[in-house]
Amino acid sequence: MSKILEQLADAGRRFDRHGWVLGTSGNFSVVLSREPLRLAITASGAFKGRLTRDQILEIDGSGAAANPAAGRPSAEARLHLEIVRSRGAGAVLHTHSMWSTLLSDRYAGTKGLAIEGYEMLKGLEGVSTHEHREWIPIVENDQDMSRLEGRIRDILFSQPLPHAFLLRRHGMYTWGETLSQAVRHVEIVEFLLEVVGRNEATSWQS
Amino acid sequence: MSKILEQLADAGRRFDRHGWVLGTSGNFSVVLSREPLRLAITASGAFKGRLTRDQILEIDGSGAAANPAAGRPSAEARLHLEIVRSRGAGAVLHTHSMWSTLLSDRYAGTKGLAIEGYEMLKGLEGVSTHEHREWIPIVENDQDMSRLEGRIRDILFSQPLPHAFLLRRHGMYTWGETLSQAVRHVEIVEFLLEVVGRNEATSWQS
Amino acid sequence: MSKILEQLADAGRRFDRHGWVLGTSGNFSVVLSREPLRLAITASGAFKGRLTRDQILEIDGSGAAANPAAGRPSAEARLHLEIVRSRGAGAVLHTHSMWSTLLSDRYAGTKGLAIEGYEMLKGLEGVSTHEHREWIPIVENDQDMSRLEGRIRDILFSQPLPHAFLLRRHGMYTWGETLSQAVRHVEIVEFLLEVVGRNEATSWQS
Amino acid sequence: MSKILEQLADAGRRFDRHGWVLGTSGNFSVVLSREPLRLAITASGAFKGRLTRDQILEIDGSGAAANPAAGRPSAEARLHLEIVRSRGAGAVLHTHSMWSTLLSDRYAGTKGLAIEGYEMLKGLEGVSTHEHREWIPIVENDQDMSRLEGRIRDILFSQPLPHAFLLRRHGMYTWGETLSQAVRHVEIVEFLLEVVGRNEATSWQS
Repeated sequence: MSKILEQLADAGRRFDRHGWVLGTSGNFSVVLSREPLRLAITASGAFKGRLTRDQILEIDGSGAAANPAAGRPSAEARLHLEIVRSRGAGAVLHTHSMWSTLLSDRYAGTKGLAIEGYEMLKGLEGVSTHEHREWIPIVENDQDMSRLEGRIRDILFSQPLPHAFLLRRHGMYTWGETLSQAVRHVEIVEFLLEVVGRNEATSWQS
Repeated sequence: MSKILEQLADAGRRFDRHGWVLGTSGNFSVVLSREPLRLAITASGAFKGRLTRDQILEIDGSGAAANPAAGRPSAEARLHLEIVRSRGAGAVLHTHSMWSTLLSDRYAGTKGLAIEGYEMLKGLEGVSTHEHREWIPIVENDQDMSRLEGRIRDILFSQPLPHAFLLRRHGMYTWGETLSQAVRHVEIVEFLLEVVGRNEATSWQS
Repeated sequence: MSKILEQLADAGRRFDRHGWVLGTSGNFSVVLSREPLRLAITASGAFKGRLTRDQILEIDGSGAAANPAAGRPSAEARLHLEIVRSRGAGAVLHTHSMWSTLLSDRYAGTKGLAIEGYEMLKGLEGVSTHEHREWIPIVENDQDMSRLEGRIRDILFSQPLPHAFLLRRHGMYTWGETLSQAVRHVEIVEFLLEVVGRNEATSWQS
Repeated sequence: MSKILEQLADAGRRFDRHGWVLGTSGNFSVVLSREPLRLAITASGAFKGRLTRDQILEIDGSGAAANPAAGRPSAEARLHLEIVRSRGAGAVLHTHSMWSTLLSDRYAGTKGLAIEGYEMLKGLEGVSTHEHREWIPIVENDQDMSRLEGRIRDILFSQPLPHAFLLRRHGMYTWGETLSQAVRHVEIVEFLLEVVGRNEATSWQS
């Protein structure tokens, strides 16, 4: 697990530099095995800019820690498991950035926002032209994880299949086949949200 | 004291990277003992991005330096002592950020601002749901430390108990049971202030 | 090639810190020889903040990789070759920044934007006074590289000769006699675009 | 001179991180001796984020390089000498930041801007209360250094004595008795300009 730790710590440092995981916000996971399902996931309350070995826990498909004495998995472990199962993801990343927070509220009424026409969209797996239209769904935030899990399950299969979604006034979830692809998706989506947000925020809009 | 120095220096480096302690602004303290009360506090005029051993001073409960030859404690030492006594804090952190400065002025008329509905609020000790409403009091700035101390004493016991307060056109104070908790509170409060500030500053407000 | 790798990696780290090459966006090239024409160019999908030796490929004047087994050159290799040939550049740099993306869309209707009167313009090769007027052309984005190449060829010879151009909703291209000059041009143009963008975005415009 | 080089390089790295000396913009100087007057000053075209020994030149009171073979001093050396003579400064720092550029244009009509009521003002040497009113003069930019020198001489003695001035659409100059004081002044003034700029740029202004 030392390679996975190193890669997760590296992602944490990058995101921390951008201010996307302030406080102890955000959580990351990587699939260790599919049969039986095992995830490495960041512990609750870990500071993501400096992840240490004891802050990465192993959980099974029910969300229970392989070694309960080692710490408490993130409360959002169930959302990670849902994404891994529904979409076959190999890694799931959740950030709490400025622009995902702002836009998740701004577009809550339409339950999502469309991003279209940007070259940067080609960084999303399977997208081959800037003429792509990406719909980023927004889900109401909830402290009841089973209710939140249900809402997310619906979103994950909406057509066209999304690469990411926002939790309202909370943050962004994205994933990838590999951790490296998921990291790329974080950077792409965060960039695009900032483009949309700054574009709207200016006074040049008529 | 070398562990405390290391932790304070680390906090200083982080805050400096975010531009929250420019110039030689800000000051930090940690409780060394309760009986008798002893604090480690940053010296006046220290640059927080690169704290050295001789820039951390020990003071007693009256604010006097244990070793006056070592340097002058921050002029705001009395505010730190007040927070330690009134709220039982183990560490007190004061930053001079962009958004705390802007919002401390913008909301001076209402003597504070409310932040409500954000998941990030759960990073504040004792808050377990995003449905929490945090009131951040704003106090008029003053060069008379005993007058300022009096104003802050009132604020510290206002209901519901605040996790932080702003000094007008000056900056932000927060605290925690431990230094690590206080650092988390700085990051959470700075994030939330920026969310509120950017949200208001955009032209999408009708 | 180890010195070139080191310089390209350094440029990548700098641009990454500014958020100008998020995801795996952007691409960089340096002329290795003129007769026959040989370029070192970043591989498709390379993360620019941490370039490694195997992510720098050698291509000939047709855009074909000297060693096809080593990886796929950036899809935009033809644009780099066009700039090297038309303008005699020794290095070409392409970034995907926030402000180039925003302004490339904002000024698409006028097919470019003028920047005039700033001291920073003197950082562009051959400019000796802030009274200079720099026209930055904007080209419609396209996935058809030969069509895009044609549009860019026209732009490269427009009078006065530009130091950079934007691809709409895509990013910025600039170049220099040397890699170090091209890096300087990136920083100058990005700064000036942000000045123009922030100036327009404020409410102080009447 | 190795200690001065180290301190100048450190200042350059800090300012570069904030984006205040992009391209090869900005220039720094330190007084080596008063009788006869000798300055260490950054060479023209040096990249400030990574200053090397050969990029720091020694000049005399006429602005001539002690060793002309070593490189060309910054074109603005005469402005540094003027500030050193008129105000007795021990170090002079010039940055090209976003907010100094924007505000130098915005307030050109009133030939300066006032900053008042901020605690951060106390970081300026000799200021002991936030109730201080700092007037930051703005001078029209000019490529004729002797004309620019004349304008600046007038500004340097205006009452109350300024801690800094702006060149229109160009950048900011500040100074201090020591390099460390001058660095602090850069950070204080840049912070205050950004506060004023962001405050004005928001839509909360009625």
